[in-house]
This record gives sequence, C-alpha cells and structure tokens, in this order.
Amino acid sequence: MRQFLVVGHEAPTDPGFSLDDLPGAGRLDLLARSVTSAFLLSHGIRKAVRCRLVLADEFTVRFEGRELRNLRPDERSTAALVRTALEARENAVGSIPAEAAPGVYIHRQGVVGALEAAAGEGTLLQLHEDGEPANEVELPADPVFVLSDHQDFSEGEDELLAERGARRVRLGPEALHADQAVTVAHNWLDTEGWTAF
Amino acid sequence: MRQFLVVGHEAPTDPGFSLDDLPGAGRLDLLARSVTSAFLLSHGIRKAVRCRLVLADEFTVRFEGRELRNLRPDERSTAALVRTALEARENAVGSIPAEAAPGVYIHRQGVVGALEAAAGEGTLLQLHEDGEPANEVELPADPVFVLSDHQDFSEGEDELLAERGARRVRLGPEALHADQAVTVAHNWLDTEGWTAF
Repeated sequence: MRQFLVVGHEAPTDPGFSLDDLPGAGRLDLLARSVTSAFLLSHGIRKAVRCRLVLADEFTVRFEGRELRNLRPDERSTAALVRTALEARENAVGSIPAEAAPGVYIHRQGVVGALEAAAGEGTLLQLHEDGEPANEVELPADPVFVLSDHQDFSEGEDELLAERGARRVRLGPEALHADQAVTVAHNWLDTEGWTAF
Repeated sequence: MRQFLVVGHEAPTDPGFSLDDLPGAGRLDLLARSVTSAFLLSHGIRKAVRCRLVLADEFTVRFEGRELRNLRPDERSTAALVRTALEARENAVGSIPAEAAPGVYIHRQGVVGALEAAAGEGTLLQLHEDGEPANEVELPADPVFVLSDHQDFSEGEDELLAERGARRVRLGPEALHADQAVTVAHNWLDTEGWTAF
C-alpha cells in the first residue's frame, strides 16, 4: 500500500469555512489537491492508497482508497469532503475515529498521533529538498510519504520524523507543491524508479 | 522554453459560467489545474514556460510565464483568469490576440491554429498511453507537450499531430489526468530524464 501524510499547519478545524475561498481557509486548496493527486488516475481511483491530512495538529482526516465513493477531481468538492469530516468531529472521541462519508474518517489526532499510526504501517519517506536523490533510493514495499503544506516542516516535526527513522528523499532539483510531489512520487513508484514505463 | 498545449473539448467559450461549478463548466477545473501545474513551483513561477488552452476549438487562451502576475495556485482564481480572457474575446480580431491580463492573451484560434503556432516554436510531443517510454526519448531543447482534457484526442486531432511530426511519448504505465501529466513532464525535464536530481 502507498500512503501519504500531509501536514496542514493552518488548515481549518471547524467546518465553518467558505468553499469560495479555499486558499484563505488555511490553504485547503493545496490540501484538497494533495488528496486528489493521491487517489485519482485519468479513468479511475488508486485503491491501494491511504492518505491522511493533519489539520492544524488537532484533527486528522483519513481517506481510504478501497472505500472512497465520492471523490471527484476538483478542489471544491474535495474540500467539501473535508468539511463533512469536520462536521462529524464531535463523534471522534478519544482514539476512536468517526466515519463521515464512505472511506473518509476523522480522528482526534495531531501530527504525533497521525505519524505514529502511519509509521506502524510502512516505511516513512520525508519528501525534502535536501534528501537523497530518489533514483538512488530503493523503492520500499509500503512507502509512507510525509509532506508539508506551503510551510516547511517545523523543527519539532523534523525531529519527530528523524526519531521514527524517516528517510529524506528528493524527487528533483525544484521545490514542488505538495500535490505535485504526490504526483511525482506516484510516477516514481509506477515506473519502478523510472525504469519501467 | 517549455510549452504545453491543452485541448479542452468542452471548455466554455462564453464568460457566463459559474466559478462554483468548474467541473460543470466543461471541466474547467482540470484545465485550470493544467495551467497552474505548468507554471507554479513551491515558491515561485517557471518563467520560461508558455501554456495554451484551446477552448472548444474556437478560442485559445495563451499564458506567458515571463509576464504572468496574477496566477495563484487554486483552481477558482485560475478559472477566473480564463473568464477574464473570455470577457475580452471580442477584442481578438482575426489573427490579432487581445491581452486580457498581464501575460494572459486570448486568440480567435481553434486546435489547428494553436497547434500551428506552437509547432513553429518547438518540438511537438503528444503525451499518449501508446507512446514511446519517456526514458528512451531524447530530451528536446524546446518541447511542446500536447495534451487532451478528460476526453481522448479526436481522430482529426491525432491526424493533425501526426502530420506535424508530433512524437508520442508515454510518461508511465498509468493514464494520468492532464495536470498530473504536466507535472511529470516537468519532472522529466527538471531531472534531465530522471538522471539529475
């Protein structure tokens, strides 16, 4: 399984945001695109994918490729799914998530909790400008790509990732948006390290 | 210079569409994402890029990286730029384009006209599932990537591209959305064919 964990530092934790101004809603435009990039192909969905969005270190919305039914490619409808998840936030109690829509779960979980859950399920790869070139890194069987939104990872987040053995990987010489990095990461895996097209 | 030409078969040619339903406006969500993927990096813009959106074989909106000032990463604001271009459509007369915003031009030009203009400026590459594997194709100096929206190229478009010597290239084993393909194409070039990270 391929996983993506995107840290949304300023993402909303309250459903009362406007779908007409997603950049103003803690860059939910970028987070929504990261989710669609994680799952959508031209004519279908990547089922063996899990994606977590950490919202302002307070909630985590988890998307499951095998269960998703309402994911469409545009930012607005995906942001609406995040809003639906936040509308169910009071049903997420302690470590028990709430299912807000098919394949969309909300957890009362910040960066530490989301990262611990993901680290138990695969190999952490931190997409980072200073990482090892991806073409020199062996493809892990169950990669968990960890990305930051428009802000850099905080020092605390960098430490957390280092403690959990995250490997830093660079996908190219240019610093990409998180959603673009998700797309390139998939291409890296799809082509078995750019060898099989 | 890198160029992208995206054929929007059902794209609006009238500015009277709603920014609240971009998928319903001839998949303008996808076209807007293709434009932002062509230009935006994490902290800046790719200046040496030109992108053309062909709208329903009637108008072409041309974006110039060196001149763009108002391109933001979200779909809605980019779709609003397309709307601004369409509001200026009556000023595009014959072969003379109208500048609707800094770096945003509208031409009275369909697929044939846009393709002829682009073909004179570089090497045509048709991103196509049946193309040659990108890792076996030599990087052209001035690539012009030609992509289709959610629909396949029509037979007529395929013929036009073949007549103009377009080379078919495959970026991986999965069929990607146009905007994702733009991102991977950039990564191919950024890394000099996935050799330089």
